[in-house]
Amino acid sequence: MTTLSNTLALAHQLIAIDSVTPDDKGCQDIMIERLAAIGFRIERLRYEDVDNFWAVRGDSGPLLAFAGHTDVVPTGPVAEWQYPPFEPQIVDGMLYGRGAADMKGSLAAMVTASEEFVAKHPDHSGRIGFLITSDEEGPATNGTVKVVEHLQAQGEHIDWCLVGEPSSTNKVGDIIKNGRRGSLGCEMTINGTQGHVAYPHLADNPIHKAAPALADLSQEHWDEGNDYFPATSFQISNINGGTGATNVIPGTLSVVFNLRFSTELSPEVIKQRVVSILDKHGLNYELNWNLSGLPFLTEKGRLVDAISAAIESATGYQTELSTAGGTSDGRFIAPTGTQVVEVGPVNATIHKVDECVKAEDLDKLHDIYCATLVNMLAQ
Amino acid sequence: MTTLSNTLALAHQLIAIDSVTPDDKGCQDIMIERLAAIGFRIERLRYEDVDNFWAVRGDSGPLLAFAGHTDVVPTGPVAEWQYPPFEPQIVDGMLYGRGAADMKGSLAAMVTASEEFVAKHPDHSGRIGFLITSDEEGPATNGTVKVVEHLQAQGEHIDWCLVGEPSSTNKVGDIIKNGRRGSLGCEMTINGTQGHVAYPHLADNPIHKAAPALADLSQEHWDEGNDYFPATSFQISNINGGTGATNVIPGTLSVVFNLRFSTELSPEVIKQRVVSILDKHGLNYELNWNLSGLPFLTEKGRLVDAISAAIESATGYQTELSTAGGTSDGRFIAPTGTQVVEVGPVNATIHKVDECVKAEDLDKLHDIYCATLVNMLAQ
Ligand SMILES: [Zn+2]
Ligand SMILES: [Zn+2]
Repeated sequence: MTTLSNTLALAHQLIAIDSVTPDDKGCQDIMIERLAAIGFRIERLRYEDVDNFWAVRGDSGPLLAFAGHTDVVPTGPVAEWQYPPFEPQIVDGMLYGRGAADMKGSLAAMVTASEEFVAKHPDHSGRIGFLITSDEEGPATNGTVKVVEHLQAQGEHIDWCLVGEPSSTNKVGDIIKNGRRGSLGCEMTINGTQGHVAYPHLADNPIHKAAPALADLSQEHWDEGNDYFPATSFQISNINGGTGATNVIPGTLSVVFNLRFSTELSPEVIKQRVVSILDKHGLNYELNWNLSGLPFLTEKGRLVDAISAAIESATGYQTELSTAGGTSDGRFIAPTGTQVVEVGPVNATIHKVDECVKAEDLDKLHDIYCATLVNMLAQ
Repeated sequence: MTTLSNTLALAHQLIAIDSVTPDDKGCQDIMIERLAAIGFRIERLRYEDVDNFWAVRGDSGPLLAFAGHTDVVPTGPVAEWQYPPFEPQIVDGMLYGRGAADMKGSLAAMVTASEEFVAKHPDHSGRIGFLITSDEEGPATNGTVKVVEHLQAQGEHIDWCLVGEPSSTNKVGDIIKNGRRGSLGCEMTINGTQGHVAYPHLADNPIHKAAPALADLSQEHWDEGNDYFPATSFQISNINGGTGATNVIPGTLSVVFNLRFSTELSPEVIKQRVVSILDKHGLNYELNWNLSGLPFLTEKGRLVDAISAAIESATGYQTELSTAGGTSDGRFIAPTGTQVVEVGPVNATIHKVDECVKAEDLDKLHDIYCATLVNMLAQ
């Protein structure tokens, strides 16, 4: 048996803890102990059932923070896993376990990168921070958003933020997420008049009335996207109408939809366009909008350049910028004026059974993070 | 307090029994006792949890049967009833109670009509039958359909059938239902590919794909109807898609629809037309068809004429023929070659709270039924 690198050993240690969201179950204690040992000042921030902590090293100057989460998504039926989710093991070069990719591997890589960097650069410029939550995979209401509020209340400003989310597609570091689309959801109710299928003239079927409008909404060309963002997309996630009885025309139809939108559109413009499509079809409706996050973008500049160079030096290949994919806690940090980028492992298996990463990718990720710290904060 | 007519007294007696489908709770015993007393031969036919009986008077010749049911639909919350559902009472000339209109009033009217007719015409021509079930409002699988099978197995043929369903719209006898549309149901599944709303290119949203097809189906002009039937109508009763999660594109969409169709269309033609609309939209689908009943029609002739004349003599006004409205147990009797018509009370309150009929309408209905017996079977 070969000896594990520091990063892989710590990743094993964290994956072995079944920290299903929002239960941290001691993952943060392990991180805190390591960070405190190299001079980080720790602030534990528990909100309701969520553990968070903020750690910072250095007294002044620009602040580069790493943001991440110790919680993992549920395993689903454990019997479907070939490799038990909380018994990390490396098989044929792959490290298996829930959280290997999302994102205990990243946490381990950044802790060991900080250790290595601090050892070589104890008097680094600026400050290094860790913003860690156990509520990224859940409702995300008592996690990053609360910590950011707390930091703002204290006058603390994060200049640069590196999020450890699994951004990579084929090989580690091939993609930097330098922004995310906005996410705007809506619960829509279409009103009709309930009745009996045998007496349709006395009823007004909301499913029939809605169908052409739903067709229009799903075929709408919302925008072209731009250099940084793909085109805005609209998706209906849920539709429900009917009493269950086969002879009753329902009185209402419920539709839940979501738009992932680029910086070309504002929520207000999207809402107006939805309303005008519904009105064109003469529908009687109610809309309950929910803005999960505005789009954010970190254009090329000091942070993107430093990370791109770090990836090239650690891996030998060039990275690409992307804003595709789901939301992340970056949406809570970017609005404070922080430059936010996400760099983490390959995301092919996240949230699936037998989640895994190439073991050597975590060592490469350590190198990327380490080189980023050097590029940004070495004296 | 005035004395109740025989019909109203019997209606009170039947309504006071809470025979919620499929529990007869002794209603049929009351009818059987009265019919046996005037020379009907009784055959009780219990299938599983459903009580039925067949009663016949007369030894040979054409058979005129009355078809009806002793079960009633559930009351819903009793607190919403101003007049308790199983405490029949006449207030301002209206008889209140569950089943007053559907169809204990009709049962009472036909029992007393038979008593009056037999008293005057003990040696009537042909035969009088009663086909009574306690499973018309439920699944209707152990009721009329089984009794009809039993009669067929015995070589018994009903020539004319008078169904006591509440056919009337504004005043008793204003409408004779001389047929019913067919009813063809379908459970449709539209297949797509599940995915995450943030990665729509990896998914195939079945709601989006189905929307234009559902619009086409609901706007389709199926036929014009004909002299006896209104145009065929299509109604979606239930639509369900989605996991409940707002960020998941569902893999399938379920749609339940129903067609009430005229004699201009066959189920085969309807199925072909649905398939061609779905195919036009390139959908991947499964269809699970359920034919509840073929359309049936009793054209003008001996039975319709006799009942029309009976209505005019009992009420002073002329009746109209109609095939509109829901299905009835007539659909099980008509296919044996029986002429089937439905004449019963005003249906405005059926299946609702405070179900009621004008008390005097039940006496008029007695007169209509009595005159029909005279017109058809008096020597
Ligand atoms: Zn994550
Ligand atoms: Zn009925």
